[in-house]
Formats: sequence, structure tokens, C-alpha cells
Amino acid sequence: MSPIKSIENRLYKIPLAEILSDAKHGDHDHFELITCTITLEDGSQGTGYTYTGGKGGYSIKAMLDYDLAPSLIGADAENIDAIYDHMEWHIHYVGRGGISSFAISAVDIALWDLKGKRLGEPLWKMAGGHSDRCKAYCGGIDLHFPLDKLLRSIEGYLERGHNAVKIKIGRANMQEDIDRIAAVRELIGPDVTFMIDANYSLTVEQAITLSKSVEQHDITWFEEPTIPDDYQGFAEIASNTSIPLAMGENLHTIHEFGYAFEQASLSFVQPDASNCGGVTGWLRAAQLANKYGIPACSHGMQELHVSLVSSQPNSGWLEVHSFPIDQYTKRPLVVEEHLAVAPNTPGTGVEFDWHKIAKYQVA
Amino acid sequence: MSPIKSIENRLYKIPLAEILSDAKHGDHDHFELITCTITLEDGSQGTGYTYTGGKGGYSIKAMLDYDLAPSLIGADAENIDAIYDHMEWHIHYVGRGGISSFAISAVDIALWDLKGKRLGEPLWKMAGGHSDRCKAYCGGIDLHFPLDKLLRSIEGYLERGHNAVKIKIGRANMQEDIDRIAAVRELIGPDVTFMIDANYSLTVEQAITLSKSVEQHDITWFEEPTIPDDYQGFAEIASNTSIPLAMGENLHTIHEFGYAFEQASLSFVQPDASNCGGVTGWLRAAQLANKYGIPACSHGMQELHVSLVSSQPNSGWLEVHSFPIDQYTKRPLVVEEHLAVAPNTPGTGVEFDWHKIAKYQVA
Ligand SMILES: [Mg+2]
Ligand SMILES: [Mg+2]
Repeated sequence: MSPIKSIENRLYKIPLAEILSDAKHGDHDHFELITCTITLEDGSQGTGYTYTGGKGGYSIKAMLDYDLAPSLIGADAENIDAIYDHMEWHIHYVGRGGISSFAISAVDIALWDLKGKRLGEPLWKMAGGHSDRCKAYCGGIDLHFPLDKLLRSIEGYLERGHNAVKIKIGRANMQEDIDRIAAVRELIGPDVTFMIDANYSLTVEQAITLSKSVEQHDITWFEEPTIPDDYQGFAEIASNTSIPLAMGENLHTIHEFGYAFEQASLSFVQPDASNCGGVTGWLRAAQLANKYGIPACSHGMQELHVSLVSSQPNSGWLEVHSFPIDQYTKRPLVVEEHLAVAPNTPGTGVEFDWHKIAKYQVA
Repeated sequence: MSPIKSIENRLYKIPLAEILSDAKHGDHDHFELITCTITLEDGSQGTGYTYTGGKGGYSIKAMLDYDLAPSLIGADAENIDAIYDHMEWHIHYVGRGGISSFAISAVDIALWDLKGKRLGEPLWKMAGGHSDRCKAYCGGIDLHFPLDKLLRSIEGYLERGHNAVKIKIGRANMQEDIDRIAAVRELIGPDVTFMIDANYSLTVEQAITLSKSVEQHDITWFEEPTIPDDYQGFAEIASNTSIPLAMGENLHTIHEFGYAFEQASLSFVQPDASNCGGVTGWLRAAQLANKYGIPACSHGMQELHVSLVSSQPNSGWLEVHSFPIDQYTKRPLVVEEHLAVAPNTPGTGVEFDWHKIAKYQVA
């Protein structure tokens, strides 16, 4: 029995080094980081977190402060599944996706951090233990980069030791997407893995057209060609083209993952533990994916997902996202021979550099 | 062109006269009311609102204050569809259901209030104009009432001029549900319309068993027998029993309504303008329902929905909900010859008694 004594939530707005753009969320000049630190009666502490592209942070913090935290004081932090279940029902009427998924995620990750510290185990072992490392790729938010800036950015990824890259597509003129894809493949040569991501900016028809125009460039996946709500639209794209499809960053509940696996003809899934229920939610999605033979990848917060993606038998690709949360932790992502390596310290292995982020706290 | 000058949001926690309980949300001793008042450059004002059973209010207000309001200053209040579209994309990454749907709803209702005042038209006319009145039923939150309190409560509805009632089911012992249903039908006689609502507390199997046990009591609908995410589970219940199915209060996006109409074998749908996108979202759901031949009913906030349900060609049943928001407005619900009558004043016709609710404001 490890009763929860207190929960402290903080909101940070962390500036990006430059403005980053995609097809549907527009320009990003900062990201939001919402941390949740749980203190037990015995004084031990665990920290979880979630993030956004710049909107919703205050709303997430309010749900943590007013709805979740008060209901968890005195609960047994060892009963992670029971707390997860409690949180889902406690805010069910205003939940089942959106803000509530982000808030629940932050609490759940803190509980796994506490569990690892209590057991002396790193997350990759607790979560499954399949491996302590996994494939990784760099995902740019680079839709509005002029072509040569795009290519220099790709070169930077390769120089940092990566052998897999992803670019944004969805420019107003589709021919520009096609030309940029061709130019990137020419730059990286045949051996580097290459994905594209439209952030659901296309219709089903446009996605089919685009896909057919670039399939000779050996694209490993086409991510979110159309809106995530349209499972059958995904299936229609998949059945009319040869490029495998991926999505997951916008699926928040296990029901949504179930519908996607059943109906969307996905080849890869990319759950994000910051918005699908934390470690518990991510593992449920990954385990369900495994039943469908689908590799479990990730979206965002590489410093945490490296442990989760590594841990699974159906380990897919870790996204090294352009929101550099890991740069504000004590252990920025480690890459060895193109593989991302999970931390071996008890807990999640994600320890924020509180001093470094203090100046960005807004609430 | 009617530019928005300012937006003021307020959160109230309004006590209920007694504790009300259902199968999945537990005890309610208050409800939350979140108001959104939009002032235009010309000084005219419109008010929208949303509500919850007690959780999420601070989070909704934070999204209104920090994410929606700042992005709407200067926007043209006459372009309701454009603003609706803007709001959906602006908070898309943390949206598509949950808190964002409640926040968007409050803004949208305020814009319709402004539109009606500008045009001098009541909501029932603007929204479709089919009629100014509709069928109505009283929906109790009465799961834990002892049987004779339940029966007295039903008698109260009939004394207030209603001829249709709904009770909560989902007691731990199913036989009690069956006995209560039989007792209510015996009390009200054969001519009063009677519905039941399980608040998704049953498995598909349990729902089929219960439904078969009570079908001789002429139940107009069985509401939310199982979780709203399980469209195919609804269809399985429908195909194994004779009582028509209803849901909608937990569907937040037009995509969810689409899946429900396609897959859940619904006989009635109950969108709630406070959580499916306001007047705009409710009308889109109702119009889609009409294509499937499904009557558009409502959930909660009878003082507003009376105009919407009345306005549609596929007008269904207005729920007179146990959260008495209408008692805090200048025009509590009007019922004539069993029909609920829409207000005929320009705008939504929902004008809060600000003096009466002032003491319940918490943020
Ligand atoms: Mg993506
Ligand atoms: Mg109901």
C-alpha cells in the first residue's frame, strides 16, 4: 500500500528554436509541457507529463488540478490499473478523448515512474522487456521549409547518426510535395528509410493520387493521409495504392484503436503515451496492435517512448520528434548504431532539468 | 460584418435540491454551468453555455479563456460556420471530443443568440421552423430512489402536465430494475409514454436479457444500454430484442454520429447541443439523422433544446432533464397540453437570471 499524499501540476510554454509548420496545425513557435508530480505518504516522488503543440495546456492543467488530483489523494499508487479505471469513469461524461486523455496520461506516467523506482526497474523492462533499444527515425515539422533548407535539415538528421527520416507533405500545390519527395530520396540514396506525413490534410482521392505519384521512391509509410476519424477512407486509400499507411497520434481511446485496426487497413500504428492514457494506454494499444500483426511505433516524446517501443515484441519505429522535450531532461535521447537506447535507471528514466525549464513555467 | 470585441466566460456550481444518482456517474449534488457571453464591437451581446454533471468545468472554462476566446477577437460573428470550422481546427490536436466539444458548444450557442437578436428571429425559426412546439418527457435521475419515492416522483411529472416519463435502470440486482419498470408501468397506465436509461452500465448480454424481461411493458426506448463506443454492441442488442434503442448524449463529433447511424441500429438519437458543437453541431447531427429516418431528440438543457427539437421535420422527444437549468433563466420551460413550447423572443430565448445564479459563481 503506497497512498498518494499530494499531486503538483505545472504548465510550461517552451519556445522552439525556429517556427515549425505542418499542413493542419499551422505554425508552432513553442510547445506546451504539462508535468504531474505525485508524492506518496512515504515521501517518494514520481513525475509524469504530457505535451501539446501550443493549445490546451491550461485546460489540461485545470482538469489535473480540479478533477483528477483531488479524487486521487489517498489512493494506492501501486494499483495502476485500478487508478486508470477510476480516472476514466470519474471524468467519463467530459472525457473519452480530447483533454481528458492528455490529463489521464500525465498521471499514469507518474504512477509508472513511481512503480519503477519502487521495484528498482527501468521502464523498458517493466513494460515488456523485449529489448532495451529500437529503430528510430527523425520526424521533421518542415512543410514550409524551402527545398534546400529541407535538404539541409535531412542532412542534419543523418549527421546525428540516424538512418531514417520523415518529412511533412500537404503543400497547396501537390506537385511541390511530389518534387520534394523525389529530391529527398535522391539526397538520401536508396538505403535510408523514408516516410511522409500529411497531417490529414488530403481528401481520400488526393491521397490516392499523391501516393501513386511517389510510390517509386520506396516510401516506408504514408502517415495520416486523411482525417483520423475516417477509418474507411484510410482503407480505401490502402486498397488503391501500394504505400503502407500509418496513424495513431490522434487516436485517444482503446475503442478508437480497435476501430482503426479493424477498419483502416493500417500497416503501422503510432500511439502517443502523452494522449492515449500514458504507459497503460500505450501498452494496451500496442498489445492490441500485436494481435493484428501491426508494429507499434510512437509519436513525440522520444525520451519516454524509447522504452515503450523497445519493450514490445511488435516493436516498430520510434519517432524522434521536432519538439525536443528530451533536451530538457537529464538524459537527451541516446542513439547507437542507428538504434535508440532506453535508459536503464529505475522508473521512466525521464528526469526533467527543473532548473532549465523553470523560466518557461506559466501556471 | 459584426466583429467580436470581447468574450467573458464564467463557471457556476449550482446545487441540486437533493442528491441524484445514476448507474455510471454516481451521486450528483450539483451541476456545473459554464456561460460564454460575447460582446460585439457595436455593443450587442449574446450568451451561450454548456453544463456538466460536476466535473470538467474548470477545464472547459480554461479552454474558453486561453484557447478559444483569444483566437476569436475581431472575427465576424455573422460567419457562424466559418467560426465553427476555425474552432474545430484551432484545437484539433487536443480536441475532437471531450472538453473541446463543450467549449465549442458554448461559443456557438452565443453566436446563434447574437444572430437571432440581429435578425429579430427566435431560434426555432432560424433552426428550421418546422414547429414552435414538440413532444416532451421527464427524465429522472432516480436510480437510488426507493420504489415508493420513485413512484411519487413519477406522479409529480404527471401532475406537472407531462404524459411521458423515463427512469434510470442499472441497479446491481437486475430483478430490481425489472420490478421497478413493472411498477412504473402499472402506476402510469397504458397511455403514458415510458422510456428507460441504463447509462451504459450493462454488457451487451445483460442488456439483451433485461430487454427481453420488460418488453411486455411497452417501452418506447432503451437508452444507452451499453457503452457509447460500442456501436456494433448496440446493433447486437437491437437485433436480439424488440425495444427500440436510443443514445446521443455521449456522441460529440459528426463522425461519431455517422458511425452510430451506420452501425448501431438506433431508433432515436439524442444529441446535446451543450456537448456536440452547440446549435450548429446539434443541427448537423439532426439533419444527418433525418437521412436515416431517425427522430432527433435531445439530452439536457430543455430551455434551449425545446427550440431545436421543435424546429426539425424529424422532431423527436425533448428531454426535460433533472438538472433544472431552466429554473435559473427568465423563462422556465413552458408546457401546454403535454407539448413543450419554444420561446418566441429573438435569439435563443435563454436569458439567465444573473442575479439568481451570482452566488454560485466559482470562477
Ligand atoms: Mg504525424
Ligand atoms: Mg441518458
